[in-house]
Amino acid sequence: MIQPCVIRKIERPAPDLVRALSDYGVATIHEAYRQQGLMRPEIRPVVPGRRVCGPAVTSLNHPGDNLMLHVAIEVSQPGDIIVVATKAPSTDGMLGELIATQCKARGLSAVILDAGVRDSADLNAMDFPVWARAISAAGTSKANPGWVNVPVVCGGVTVNPGDLVVADDDGVVVVGRSAAAAVLEASRARTEKEALSRSRYERGEISLDVNNLRAILTQLGVKYFETADEAQGRPAK
Amino acid sequence: MIQPCVIRKIERPAPDLVRALSDYGVATIHEAYRQQGLMRPEIRPVVPGRRVCGPAVTSLNHPGDNLMLHVAIEVSQPGDIIVVATKAPSTDGMLGELIATQCKARGLSAVILDAGVRDSADLNAMDFPVWARAISAAGTSKANPGWVNVPVVCGGVTVNPGDLVVADDDGVVVVGRSAAAAVLEASRARTEKEALSRSRYERGEISLDVNNLRAILTQLGVKYFETADEAQGRPAK
Amino acid sequence: MIQPCVIRKIERPAPDLVRALSDYGVATIHEAYRQQGLMRPEIRPVVPGRRVCGPAVTSLNHPGDNLMLHVAIEVSQPGDIIVVATKAPSTDGMLGELIATQCKARGLSAVILDAGVRDSADLNAMDFPVWARAISAAGTSKANPGWVNVPVVCGGVTVNPGDLVVADDDGVVVVGRSAAAAVLEASRARTEKEALSRSRYERGEISLDVNNLRAILTQLGVKYFETADEAQGRPAK
Amino acid sequence: MIQPCVIRKIERPAPDLVRALSDYGVATIHEAYRQQGLMRPEIRPVVPGRRVCGPAVTSLNHPGDNLMLHVAIEVSQPGDIIVVATKAPSTDGMLGELIATQCKARGLSAVILDAGVRDSADLNAMDFPVWARAISAAGTSKANPGWVNVPVVCGGVTVNPGDLVVADDDGVVVVGRSAAAAVLEASRARTEKEALSRSRYERGEISLDVNNLRAILTQLGVKYFETADEAQGRPAK
Amino acid sequence: MIQPCVIRKIERPAPDLVRALSDYGVATIHEAYRQQGLMRPEIRPVVPGRRVCGPAVTSLNHPGDNLMLHVAIEVSQPGDIIVVATKAPSTDGMLGELIATQCKARGLSAVILDAGVRDSADLNAMDFPVWARAISAAGTSKANPGWVNVPVVCGGVTVNPGDLVVADDDGVVVVGRSAAAAVLEASRARTEKEALSRSRYERGEISLDVNNLRAILTQLGVKYFETADEAQGRPAK
Amino acid sequence: MIQPCVIRKIERPAPDLVRALSDYGVATIHEAYRQQGLMRPEIRPVVPGRRVCGPAVTSLNHPGDNLMLHVAIEVSQPGDIIVVATKAPSTDGMLGELIATQCKARGLSAVILDAGVRDSADLNAMDFPVWARAISAAGTSKANPGWVNVPVVCGGVTVNPGDLVVADDDGVVVVGRSAAAAVLEASRARTEKEALSRSRYERGEISLDVNNLRAILTQLGVKYFETADEAQGRPAK
Repeated sequence: MIQPCVIRKIERPAPDLVRALSDYGVATIHEAYRQQGLMRPEIRPVVPGRRVCGPAVTSLNHPGDNLMLHVAIEVSQPGDIIVVATKAPSTDGMLGELIATQCKARGLSAVILDAGVRDSADLNAMDFPVWARAISAAGTSKANPGWVNVPVVCGGVTVNPGDLVVADDDGVVVVGRSAAAAVLEASRARTEKEALSRSRYERGEISLDVNNLRAILTQLGVKYFETADEAQGRPAK
Repeated sequence: MIQPCVIRKIERPAPDLVRALSDYGVATIHEAYRQQGLMRPEIRPVVPGRRVCGPAVTSLNHPGDNLMLHVAIEVSQPGDIIVVATKAPSTDGMLGELIATQCKARGLSAVILDAGVRDSADLNAMDFPVWARAISAAGTSKANPGWVNVPVVCGGVTVNPGDLVVADDDGVVVVGRSAAAAVLEASRARTEKEALSRSRYERGEISLDVNNLRAILTQLGVKYFETADEAQGRPAK
Repeated sequence: MIQPCVIRKIERPAPDLVRALSDYGVATIHEAYRQQGLMRPEIRPVVPGRRVCGPAVTSLNHPGDNLMLHVAIEVSQPGDIIVVATKAPSTDGMLGELIATQCKARGLSAVILDAGVRDSADLNAMDFPVWARAISAAGTSKANPGWVNVPVVCGGVTVNPGDLVVADDDGVVVVGRSAAAAVLEASRARTEKEALSRSRYERGEISLDVNNLRAILTQLGVKYFETADEAQGRPAK
Repeated sequence: MIQPCVIRKIERPAPDLVRALSDYGVATIHEAYRQQGLMRPEIRPVVPGRRVCGPAVTSLNHPGDNLMLHVAIEVSQPGDIIVVATKAPSTDGMLGELIATQCKARGLSAVILDAGVRDSADLNAMDFPVWARAISAAGTSKANPGWVNVPVVCGGVTVNPGDLVVADDDGVVVVGRSAAAAVLEASRARTEKEALSRSRYERGEISLDVNNLRAILTQLGVKYFETADEAQGRPAK
Repeated sequence: MIQPCVIRKIERPAPDLVRALSDYGVATIHEAYRQQGLMRPEIRPVVPGRRVCGPAVTSLNHPGDNLMLHVAIEVSQPGDIIVVATKAPSTDGMLGELIATQCKARGLSAVILDAGVRDSADLNAMDFPVWARAISAAGTSKANPGWVNVPVVCGGVTVNPGDLVVADDDGVVVVGRSAAAAVLEASRARTEKEALSRSRYERGEISLDVNNLRAILTQLGVKYFETADEAQGRPAK
Repeated sequence: MIQPCVIRKIERPAPDLVRALSDYGVATIHEAYRQQGLMRPEIRPVVPGRRVCGPAVTSLNHPGDNLMLHVAIEVSQPGDIIVVATKAPSTDGMLGELIATQCKARGLSAVILDAGVRDSADLNAMDFPVWARAISAAGTSKANPGWVNVPVVCGGVTVNPGDLVVADDDGVVVVGRSAAAAVLEASRARTEKEALSRSRYERGEISLDVNNLRAILTQLGVKYFETADEAQGRPAK
């Protein structure tokens, strides 16, 4: 996709699937997805305490310029999550309260940026959820072409338009549209299994027993000693 | 200014100007100042939720040593903001609760450090606003000469004594004394203009229309397509 | 200690000493310990507002693998603080809500990780205190051998099993077992001395006078001038 | 692609295209590709002075584990470039002299890693070109499943199996297979145009004139002044 | 200086002074300048093995845009060093071989950038000295206004037009024009004193004696012990 | 070891052991030591192309101050490697050509610093090997007490006086004195084993076969498919 362009129509996951996946947090989904799709930990919540789930609308921008974020708003639908990438590393404040106002008015679920945001106090007051690499008031221009709804990389993860984005206080995970149903199933299974483990842990059991880790330790040759002296073959002091 | 020294008297902006600029946040002032004067995003609020505005008293220190910060307190006045720089990169905790107690007792507005601070819980309990590069208990010495009230660089911005410093949850911006009146005017204008835009956004309009961005897109050759297939000249699936 | 192994028994400091040191924060203890033992500032509280003090149980893991953290839980006692290190840099989420549940059920005081943690919202809801380098949902394996209760480096500090770990919003400090009594004494003395200084600061005195810093300035050759012009030998404007 | 797996067959660009693109450096191709596809600057040459071009074979690994790099060698062909990604940030030394020996014996063109390498002196002595995020001897395990020849993200760029990878001292750029012919054409055009500019620059002309930048300056309102005093409306000193 | 603008005429230091300072390296000048003026260590030589000294022509750019670097070339003179800053953090490749060709043809001494450069192999082949924060092929636009010959911050140091810039393999130091003569004098004195010390060191003497550091150790209370046991008051083993 | 002090006498490994270990590089020794003891990859050679091996003399300094490095030279012996740590993060240039001259005259093998160095060109010209975190001319003071020959942390590794330090272009590894003989033995065995593998690799065999990795893949459930379509259960295109 060499020439800068805007794709208006994307395929989104079924609303039922989005709703169902909303029950699970980032850590669960990441594990259910075979530990794929997790953005690097530098992408942090600017408005803590929120969990969102929705289809991605993607925006690829020149660093220091947010023109294509404005365009992404135009082609997005209620429930969407705009994912903002830059062609090169940047922490500039590509989104502020005015853009968030537009997004909120149009019913968007969230914006995720591999860049900075500003008006962080306002974003919290509005309770519009945003995840970003930095908080920075650095102003951006609107002078460079880019792309909307092409595959982008945000936080070290490829995001295709229509992929499912889930974000909470742990960060952001992206699930490919074709994998979403399987991930949902695995998330359910994992959550049920964890509930069983949790109740055993609350009663004082430990994961060495609950998860049968002792066999692994033996196989790996990890030995137990009473004291450091014993481990090193020294006489006890 | 080769020899370490302390300058007692600096020119401060008119109190009216300081008060008037206090109405505006960092993002607005940074834009009104033609996107100048913004500290790098590593300088973060240690006591969130505060906005301050005041003239800079500057302190240039050896890394790992806070002697000249102590001196800066001596020559500062109520309302001042002490800006602390180091000659080389440092995250050591140059300010703690005892220094903050002095600053608060003397009516200072804030301290901004291109270094670390400690006693972060106490600073929040005291509600004395501080911005810094790091939270670190690392102790500093008082054994190296430095400067007070010379131009310094803090967070990547030159700060002259008497410059106006504005800080909030978005970070810190510094306005040259001679530019402050013009920046105030531009901040007012910008705020009025944004209020108009905001009400349109709240009604569902978008910035492409409100800010006439479509002409820019056309000029830059950004084209719209219905689908990715169409954009790549492939037949629709 | 070449072969991976687990040491079951470690010497812990006397409970009285642990209790007594609990009265002091990280900044005080770090100074009382002659500015030793402080972890680098990247190790931050995941559950803010807590202060803990306890003996270290150490766990050394392959990066991306948390097997030996599971083992550390087995050999720890109520009041202990597990200190988790990796053989190479990692931000993966080695601890989540399930492991924290085990730790809490067994009465552990805290976990400190030179790595990442996940389920950060749950950890706050549980109020189980954790300090870490990153918040990351990145999943870990349980497939690599390691060590429990050998000396490790966490946050740039050597931690021996049984060392005293103190952590609060400022970060984490580690005190060698043999030094703990002396550090306690010095912490008390320092706190008393600071109380005297604080009351003088609250009355408007400054540290230049309270701490006799003027003599140092004179000795270092730091001169006072009324104005920058005077300092540079220029005629007053 | 949820389950870990290995894809044996990938589509590669035509050898003629690879050869033709080999004439151009990373900077030229990145511009010809509308500034897309450039890996972040942390990915640096371990063996400087080399330029390579070839189709990507991709390998996605657990951090701290290089099992799937070994598998990638199996399914690669002479001329290929193996691109190594990890599921979470890692600097561990995933490739050393022994793996490089295999790669060289099989005629591979290069390896690019979003991780570390070791035996850096040997790699230079062998003259086998490698680009990586770090030089680190940190050992890796072979205990975790992963993927070969699925889309990965390396250095912030999506790499699909069969994409064209070009690397030199400036870093690494990745060109989608379907775009390669157009990028080649644009690279040729750009190189010709630059040759014309270069000869004018060598004669002392400047880009303001050669590239008609003065019109842009005028349009942007950038004004020229003889002195700073004049710019600020102050009388000349 | 609110409005973007270009200042054509700046005051430069006397050519004799520039020539004389050229005899000294960055480390010497930094010490002679009372440890002021040193850029942060991230600014590294792209063309190693060179030392340059010359007056600064400054250029302040929007991140991701190099328009004002092109303008800076226009107003520079043979022997000048262009210092390039950005309004917010950026590693984009603002300078490549074509711009370097212009600079070399016009007799400039060097370019220093708080950003990235590309065509690094060509720059070395041309032997045109450049210092930068990163090597990156990331392309820049020419679409944003900025400033030439206003004070800027580069590498954490304020650079005024006409300041003396000295750069070598250790990094970059900037000396204010009014301080240059005194720094030259101090550099000479320091170099002579170091020559005396060096010859004593070569004969096996150590700095504790040559520089009378023993008195400092005594004053600071640093005690000597034969063994660690003795230092801790333990009986010898 | 609370009070700053200097320990004159340390136990060193047998010279034969030092000589024997000198035959092995950092990567080999790190593996032979069960992947322990490796400094973080930020510690890089300032004088590339050298390999050194010797006993550690340790120096713990206040950040921005190199007084205790001067003392470490006094108590070191020919063949020793001085390991320099700071109490808090620092990149200041603690060692330059004059200190290196002393070290070289006294027959020291190298200096390793978790900080910066200056005069990097001179160090290369002298061919005195140094590893450091940064190259920086930033000057240090000699005004703060510290320790010599106590355990320190350098590059994330605990270094006890008399530990064996091995450094080359890959970085730095530290071997505890009591483990050195076993590490030597394991290094020899590893090297022999690798020689066998290498010859097989040179003949075109791959590690999947040479190291029996296929069994691991099977056990981990990694499946092979001919094409991506097959892997996803899609009909071939």
